[in-house]
Amino acid sequence: MNLQSAPRIILHKPQLGENIGSVARVMLNFGISELRLVAPRDGWPNPAALPLSAGAFDSGLRVEVFENIEAAIGDLKTVIAATARPRGMEKIVEDAAGAADAAARAPSDTGIIFGSESSGLPSEVVGLADIIMTYPVNPDFASLNLAQAVGVFCASWGALQGRQGRFEGTNEGVGELAPRSDLIRMFEHLEDELERAGYFYPADKTKLMKTNIRNGFIRGNWTVQEVRTFRGAIKVLALGRGKARVKP
Amino acid sequence: MNLQSAPRIILHKPQLGENIGSVARVMLNFGISELRLVAPRDGWPNPAALPLSAGAFDSGLRVEVFENIEAAIGDLKTVIAATARPRGMEKIVEDAAGAADAAARAPSDTGIIFGSESSGLPSEVVGLADIIMTYPVNPDFASLNLAQAVGVFCASWGALQGRQGRFEGTNEGVGELAPRSDLIRMFEHLEDELERAGYFYPADKTKLMKTNIRNGFIRGNWTVQEVRTFRGAIKVLALGRGKARVKP
Repeated sequence: MNLQSAPRIILHKPQLGENIGSVARVMLNFGISELRLVAPRDGWPNPAALPLSAGAFDSGLRVEVFENIEAAIGDLKTVIAATARPRGMEKIVEDAAGAADAAARAPSDTGIIFGSESSGLPSEVVGLADIIMTYPVNPDFASLNLAQAVGVFCASWGALQGRQGRFEGTNEGVGELAPRSDLIRMFEHLEDELERAGYFYPADKTKLMKTNIRNGFIRGNWTVQEVRTFRGAIKVLALGRGKARVKP
Repeated sequence: MNLQSAPRIILHKPQLGENIGSVARVMLNFGISELRLVAPRDGWPNPAALPLSAGAFDSGLRVEVFENIEAAIGDLKTVIAATARPRGMEKIVEDAAGAADAAARAPSDTGIIFGSESSGLPSEVVGLADIIMTYPVNPDFASLNLAQAVGVFCASWGALQGRQGRFEGTNEGVGELAPRSDLIRMFEHLEDELERAGYFYPADKTKLMKTNIRNGFIRGNWTVQEVRTFRGAIKVLALGRGKARVKP
């Protein structure tokens, strides 16, 4: 994971330390490590941030404090502003995935600014950004928690990294798919026993009954191990109740 | 926004009321209104949930409480489990966007299960799901806050709605999918008979053996008719060879 190239998260005049702690945690969850605070209401450091940070500040999350937004974005070359409301400004508008993509494609240092809990970003701050990021929210219940708003962006950033292969794959350790021949033998085994047990009646329904059962199994993409387990089950069932009890 | 067709969010044994409140808020932010709680540690209603809910419970967010996961998913036809760890189960693995897409494309009711703050989801709950959802996280700081984990999915769902407007089901013409309660009864039936037949040996392998068999069935998206047919098969097999032969 390349923490260096991740975008800076910039909180403009954040109010609650708890939210700063939650922001720190979710940033680091998705591999973003540089947090900038612009004029935090309760100063910095703020002990209220610690409980919800889950140790992020001791695990690589770095915080810098700035007096104003101009200072906080001075060294950046691409700036994104998160805002819920349309602004009537002629800027690119992206959702979280689009903003993450824009940050990833930017040739150099990027930052994304989130506003305060009570009032979001003032227009003059939005005006400093290249791109507006906005989420499609329920118009009847539109106000996101600050850390959730940051988290949605961070997760989109993380997902992009995951797709690009900087994280490890998540699909390991699953069993090898059974070859179709294993499945067919399993069907034949099951159908043999059902035949013996007198299941297929009336005779002209036999084919349909078999197809019904086979279809469900076929769609299941059974693994070699699952087929083996289930064939054991058929065997034991066919012996009848209690016959297979193992004597240690 | 069509709240009716949105996936159910299911919290399995949630601990902190504050997290339940935060979950409720972020769900409703992105137009998801049905929350199911399985055995919440501190009961329900829980006053600790209110401050962080931002009024969600009075704005259309509905809560139902269930004693166990089987009851909570009984009426659902597509089930997603959120889990951080690879499970060695042969299931579809999706990120948030993929899971949201799968939920949107599912022909009928869908739910997504999130585990408890302390321990996530037990394997037997994951085993009941069709799809595993996992986020690509920083391996050195992987533990997400519960409400953040829910929020990431909800935002992906919301983004999809934003892009698509309303969507139609795409899976017509196949038999009606069996509700999860039918499948669970089928498992219990099969497992009962296997138990009687002395199949589960040694005892410490029982859980794994059950999960192996259940997984294959879960992935198969069995229809109501297929479940009915197969339950007939279990019944007949369990009677033992020849016992079920019908006399015309």
